[in-house]
Amino acid sequence: MPDRPKVLVLGGGFGGVGAVKKLKHAEADVILVDKHDYHTFQPLLYQVASDLIETTTVGHQLRDLFRDHDNVTVHEAAVSGIDLENRTVSFEEMDPQPYDHLVIGLGAVVNYFGVPGADEHAFPMYTLPDAVRLRRRILERWEATDRDPSLADDGALNVVVVGAGPTGVESAGAIAELYRSNFSKDFPNLPQDKARVILIEGGDAVLPMFKKGLQTYAKKALEKLSVEVRLGEVVEKIEPTRVHLKSGETIDAHTLVWGAGMLANPLASDLGVELQRGGRVPTELDLSLAGHPEVFVTGDIAWITDAKTKKVLPQLGSVALQAGEHAGENIARRLEGKDTQPFKYLDKGTMATIGPRAAVVQMPRGRSLTGRTAWLSWGAVHLALLSTDEARARALLDWTWGIFTHERAGRIMVDGADK
Amino acid sequence: MPDRPKVLVLGGGFGGVGAVKKLKHAEADVILVDKHDYHTFQPLLYQVASDLIETTTVGHQLRDLFRDHDNVTVHEAAVSGIDLENRTVSFEEMDPQPYDHLVIGLGAVVNYFGVPGADEHAFPMYTLPDAVRLRRRILERWEATDRDPSLADDGALNVVVVGAGPTGVESAGAIAELYRSNFSKDFPNLPQDKARVILIEGGDAVLPMFKKGLQTYAKKALEKLSVEVRLGEVVEKIEPTRVHLKSGETIDAHTLVWGAGMLANPLASDLGVELQRGGRVPTELDLSLAGHPEVFVTGDIAWITDAKTKKVLPQLGSVALQAGEHAGENIARRLEGKDTQPFKYLDKGTMATIGPRAAVVQMPRGRSLTGRTAWLSWGAVHLALLSTDEARARALLDWTWGIFTHERAGRIMVDGADK
Repeated sequence: MPDRPKVLVLGGGFGGVGAVKKLKHAEADVILVDKHDYHTFQPLLYQVASDLIETTTVGHQLRDLFRDHDNVTVHEAAVSGIDLENRTVSFEEMDPQPYDHLVIGLGAVVNYFGVPGADEHAFPMYTLPDAVRLRRRILERWEATDRDPSLADDGALNVVVVGAGPTGVESAGAIAELYRSNFSKDFPNLPQDKARVILIEGGDAVLPMFKKGLQTYAKKALEKLSVEVRLGEVVEKIEPTRVHLKSGETIDAHTLVWGAGMLANPLASDLGVELQRGGRVPTELDLSLAGHPEVFVTGDIAWITDAKTKKVLPQLGSVALQAGEHAGENIARRLEGKDTQPFKYLDKGTMATIGPRAAVVQMPRGRSLTGRTAWLSWGAVHLALLSTDEARARALLDWTWGIFTHERAGRIMVDGADK
Repeated sequence: MPDRPKVLVLGGGFGGVGAVKKLKHAEADVILVDKHDYHTFQPLLYQVASDLIETTTVGHQLRDLFRDHDNVTVHEAAVSGIDLENRTVSFEEMDPQPYDHLVIGLGAVVNYFGVPGADEHAFPMYTLPDAVRLRRRILERWEATDRDPSLADDGALNVVVVGAGPTGVESAGAIAELYRSNFSKDFPNLPQDKARVILIEGGDAVLPMFKKGLQTYAKKALEKLSVEVRLGEVVEKIEPTRVHLKSGETIDAHTLVWGAGMLANPLASDLGVELQRGGRVPTELDLSLAGHPEVFVTGDIAWITDAKTKKVLPQLGSVALQAGEHAGENIARRLEGKDTQPFKYLDKGTMATIGPRAAVVQMPRGRSLTGRTAWLSWGAVHLALLSTDEARARALLDWTWGIFTHERAGRIMVDGADK
């Protein structure tokens, strides 16, 4: 076989996976590299944290996903540098890889905006290990308080969630539901009124990117689950068991979930372009990098301007997936000697779920859904999007089980790391 | 409510869980303490290690198990000492607990028989974290070899399993099946002939406690899965990537699974009786401790003599469960002012599974089963024994899926411990 062009895809998130999918029939060697051996279905991370579903429903083995792609090789390694000049990417644990075409879908890291103590004490919610750590922390604090109930007075069971975007809202709702439906039965001797879930948002509404009516509905739904929604408050400092607000107030809480912001992967600075807000890499209308038609950028690391609306697109899984697919298609076109196409995002609606049966859906052209209908459509959409039949069967089992019994997936702490 | 007698149950394994079950209607406060928040279904641990099933199929939340028991409280804490004189148990993380009746089901720890390097480099298979660590190790070695294929020549993919009892046989068979059915597809570029599974046994047969015909069948079934069965060999020293045998031979292997023996929990030495082989605590015929009719001992920590056959019973899950139930019944009898009863084990058969469709079952009165029938009965028995409906539904889904697709539960490494 003659040497085929080499397409290197960095990152196995929605962007990278979308690109590889569209290269299935390309006459090229496609090499997908991620620092983990799995793809993360990020929209359901909060369900792992609140123990609604298993980690394997949300993490899908990358080799499995592309087993029927003859031209794909998967490696697990962390990128250490991108050399655009020599068309080579270096890795922490692996030899450097040259490329003819490159897809950069390296995502983001959490942005603590310099809040003191956040790096040491906050629990971010961006990766699957993040979600597992948060789940473990919550369980561990309840077990500790079971042994020494006076810890409840110190705020051991309280959880502060920072940021009322989808991550914060979904996490707060799911934790409150876990507290009210399950822990109240698991720990009948503990004071449930000392197990507060407090959502802190600097702005004046939850779910800022949603319409006013949906914001109002979401806030009410959260409060019905006994989440305390605190708008116009900003976190100033975080200590292991205390959260200090700019207003001077101190909240006793041993767990702080950070859902407030992200910063593009720092490797963005290797790309020789002026970065945009949040350190994001601006793309051309065909998703390529300025001056480098062989390089495409997609997902949370990218600053993507929609070719139709000329608006910058938000950092959403649906944008990352569509942009990744488009990047893959553009590379396939180029391999066939054709021109690339500009990227136009197709908005199929944005959803956030608040509790066991409540959700909001903002549809294109101003329509919206709330309540049980929204929740069911949310379930249907996520089931459809899960990558494998097995994951779908698992999620369906977990969810159906949860609806009928209010039971969780496990609520156990298994530590496989310490010996 | 007047002060009721306090029954303290140490350990949430088969023994402790059996005892608590039988105390459901007892007029007593039952306190169950385990160092984890879950009960482990140990017979399926090897399936977690080889990624056939989820951790939550094997680990069941203890609070969940006894939610409909009004008299049960569960705590997560590690026992640090037992004071028979003052009828008090002390814990690492919790205040001491007094008791009127005590059940000791504290299990065992791995016994390396002083083999140098074992403590540092061997992977035991007794607890759920053990199984998770082994799974992670195997996956991690394949990923590392994928990045640097020369590691295969160093034995990175080879697994040595020490001990051909049920733990060793089931682990070796399941790992070999994982290698042949899955990794051969996941890592098509890696040399499968350098991914050996080697079972080392000091005796002259696999499954020593089974009948000769079943031993022969099991050995053949293992070899059909390409497990190399090495009888009459003893491990002398273990290095990170090398296994040294007494015969002078050295095997290149980065992973060594220890299924060769166990030692009763060292807390046994607090009980003031002369310990038996393996540090086990001898019991009276009613499972109580000599001189302490208020203390019962069950499970792997106990040296139990069958009241009917007068033979010492093996350390099996079925013995632990029955003995635990019997201890619970004896405490219930005593609470009602009745005499305790001697314990007679009801042998319902012993099973070991070797591969995806092969198993051996040794039935009472000399009967036995092999092959597909054995495998199906094995599946049925284990499904029936799993503690919750949800775990059953999960296991059934995992197993059915596995049979039809040869797929595994996840094959992903999620680390929630390192930050």
